[in-house]
Amino acid sequence: MGPKMQRKDFTNEMKADFENLFGNQVSFSDPVLIAHGNGESYHPVAKPDAVVFTQSTEDVSNAMKLCDKHSIPVIPFGTGTSLEGHVNALFGGVTIDVSGMDQILEINEEDLDCRVQAGLTRIRLNEELRATGLFFPIDPGADASIGGMAATRASGTNAVRYGTMKDVVLGLTIVKPDGEVIKTGGRAKKSSAGYDLTRLYVGSEGTLGIITEIQLRLFGQPEAVTAATCPFPDISSAINTAMLVVQSGIPVARMELVCEKSIAAVNKYSKLSLAEQPTLFFEFHGTPAWAKEQAEMVGEIATEFGGEGFQWATELEVRNKLWAARHSMYHATRAAYPGCNGMTTDVCVPISRLAEAMEQAAELVEKHDVIAPIVGHVGDGNFHLAIMVDPDDEAHIKRAKAVSESLVENALALGGTCTGEHGIGYGKIGYLKAEHGGGVDVMAAVKAALDPKGLMNPGKIIQA
Amino acid sequence: MGPKMQRKDFTNEMKADFENLFGNQVSFSDPVLIAHGNGESYHPVAKPDAVVFTQSTEDVSNAMKLCDKHSIPVIPFGTGTSLEGHVNALFGGVTIDVSGMDQILEINEEDLDCRVQAGLTRIRLNEELRATGLFFPIDPGADASIGGMAATRASGTNAVRYGTMKDVVLGLTIVKPDGEVIKTGGRAKKSSAGYDLTRLYVGSEGTLGIITEIQLRLFGQPEAVTAATCPFPDISSAINTAMLVVQSGIPVARMELVCEKSIAAVNKYSKLSLAEQPTLFFEFHGTPAWAKEQAEMVGEIATEFGGEGFQWATELEVRNKLWAARHSMYHATRAAYPGCNGMTTDVCVPISRLAEAMEQAAELVEKHDVIAPIVGHVGDGNFHLAIMVDPDDEAHIKRAKAVSESLVENALALGGTCTGEHGIGYGKIGYLKAEHGGGVDVMAAVKAALDPKGLMNPGKIIQA
Repeated sequence: MGPKMQRKDFTNEMKADFENLFGNQVSFSDPVLIAHGNGESYHPVAKPDAVVFTQSTEDVSNAMKLCDKHSIPVIPFGTGTSLEGHVNALFGGVTIDVSGMDQILEINEEDLDCRVQAGLTRIRLNEELRATGLFFPIDPGADASIGGMAATRASGTNAVRYGTMKDVVLGLTIVKPDGEVIKTGGRAKKSSAGYDLTRLYVGSEGTLGIITEIQLRLFGQPEAVTAATCPFPDISSAINTAMLVVQSGIPVARMELVCEKSIAAVNKYSKLSLAEQPTLFFEFHGTPAWAKEQAEMVGEIATEFGGEGFQWATELEVRNKLWAARHSMYHATRAAYPGCNGMTTDVCVPISRLAEAMEQAAELVEKHDVIAPIVGHVGDGNFHLAIMVDPDDEAHIKRAKAVSESLVENALALGGTCTGEHGIGYGKIGYLKAEHGGGVDVMAAVKAALDPKGLMNPGKIIQA
Repeated sequence: MGPKMQRKDFTNEMKADFENLFGNQVSFSDPVLIAHGNGESYHPVAKPDAVVFTQSTEDVSNAMKLCDKHSIPVIPFGTGTSLEGHVNALFGGVTIDVSGMDQILEINEEDLDCRVQAGLTRIRLNEELRATGLFFPIDPGADASIGGMAATRASGTNAVRYGTMKDVVLGLTIVKPDGEVIKTGGRAKKSSAGYDLTRLYVGSEGTLGIITEIQLRLFGQPEAVTAATCPFPDISSAINTAMLVVQSGIPVARMELVCEKSIAAVNKYSKLSLAEQPTLFFEFHGTPAWAKEQAEMVGEIATEFGGEGFQWATELEVRNKLWAARHSMYHATRAAYPGCNGMTTDVCVPISRLAEAMEQAAELVEKHDVIAPIVGHVGDGNFHLAIMVDPDDEAHIKRAKAVSESLVENALALGGTCTGEHGIGYGKIGYLKAEHGGGVDVMAAVKAALDPKGLMNPGKIIQA
């Protein structure tokens, strides 16, 4: 590893270069810099020196050529909803805000794919798709940009059935650190043509290049959708249910665990009256007969493990309310603890070890005296503690970090990962070596080969 | 690009080094070298200087350290069933034959995964899994090794439902060119922890390191399996059927097109009496009710497009015979044209362009006067011409290559890929630039970073 990166002065010459090229598409104003200096997490704001609002791949390329010329860092920015400090400008430099690049470039209905710009958000994409009979399933809590979701290898509640961003990204347009534009992948459903650059860039968190366009796999809207909820006497009964559902090969579209604290928070936030018990939320997709058969099989399993009333909802309105509530869980929790920010954990373990991992989590929460509602994408073995921390209380943050660290150590010991879907950013950079050992040196070699000056989102994934 | 690689003399010192370390695990005998100098394709044999039969990851590591010490090429070898010259020792060197590393290291029934050594073949794996209620779906025509399948990003007839090797490999043990052993991925169902090294090595064809162990995702054996065949008056009716099945979201487990020439060959080879017409082979997995519903929906679509008798087979014996016939197609075709080898094409296009691509293929076959039965994984937009070539007739090979080249050009123009599942090897290295443009430079940079001496399977994927 070379000498540690230093923050460079952003000179008047640099400023003039950006102003000349980008006019009012570039901002140096403090509120704009601050707004771009952190995502939605507890990490302290780290301001860039400038923010460029790009409208095209060409804009991104031009901005990157300038950064390359001046050897200053580049930080990609979509909606700023990341949770591990991905957008924080640790060494200053130029943030490239692609949120204005929000167009759908093509929809190929017959092939179930589309091409979008990186700044388009997942909810807008689905609104635009509605009339086509297609939909895009990946749904992290936030209404994130597709580019940001690709960059962090995001997933969400549908991953148990439809996979993660690694599964639905067919190809990318990438601007390399020197400004050159390349395309990866293609529209064919499969290919063995050379190294899988698409999946190298998916999850690379802006450290190898900037994603400006994404070719996405889409899915037909299911003919029938059934939702269900089921409260359980305790978390382990709920997890045993989830485990057996997965092992039985029932292709649930969604299977989410919400703890009693989270239910309480969301009841208040979304004006619901769900039983304040550990609860599984389900969704089933298929033909009417097949969705019904799935729901019946799951209902039987839930009852077997002590589920206390498996309730179906086929009406669109009830379903939407239920899932909107599930998606607002993080905000509901923050609202329930005013003045607090979330330190969100994201471990993922083999499903056979999930009950163990969640028991250990509950012990850690008690031991370190923190408040931490739990939600889990339990079909994938992935769960989140939203540890509520007062950002001005260092002792509190320290206790929360102790929980988070032990949780990761436990997950790795169980054969799991430190992050199922949020990414490494700089918040989890310390865990990567523990998880991947010598693989981290391979990652560093790839980084050095593709970003020889080390300017791409420095300090994320790989130590700068 | 550096100077073109030269074949080095394999010195007595090198020979002695390998003999000292590997005793009777190393062979220099001509029949062994020849047997390792080509796969199952028309490419001329290119012998290595030595073949090491490794029994463990440590053996592989030791062999690679010796190759690194002497700066000689390393070629990984599984079952030798590849189709693009992947195993041919273009610059001599040492072939590492992992076929003796054929153990299942663990089966985690609860988590639907297992860990195997690279030399285990797919049929043996499924035999060992039978009693567990699990199965491994990826099935290229040959009984290939799991390591080789990972290295070429293989797929087969089940990919339309279960994906390709990129989807089922959870993690790898890799021996790097310097002999260091690393592990990628893990047992969690998803992870956002750093660059996706697993999918960088999957499909890298031994050019970055050697795969010695694979963590594989498994699936529950379906409760009910129904197979069906349906002959059509012409290929386009069959393709239109396949297209609508995919677009309707019916999760067929298999959907294979076989042309009338291939049916004739397989009737003879496997003593069957299928109607000698373009035919779709289907398989449906699910609960009994759901598999039946899928078959009924597909039957209706097939009839709509002129399918002439959609026939079901639920009995295991009939189904097995049908699929064994489908898998023997390549050998059946070779048997029908004695003295010929296959030049197998492998384009894959967006499904909406499949009919067009196959019409163009038929025109090319006629124009260049070759014999080329067609089979297609039509649910994925992937099809193979098995162009029968007399390996001693240069004019014949030239005509076959003209067909293959035009086919690839057409596929790329339709938004497709030059190889859906066979890989680049050296047979298709010329097409990679046409397909991926500047992306090939990125691939070359990755190759240079991870294999700085350029010893790993030189001349495959990246020009040596």
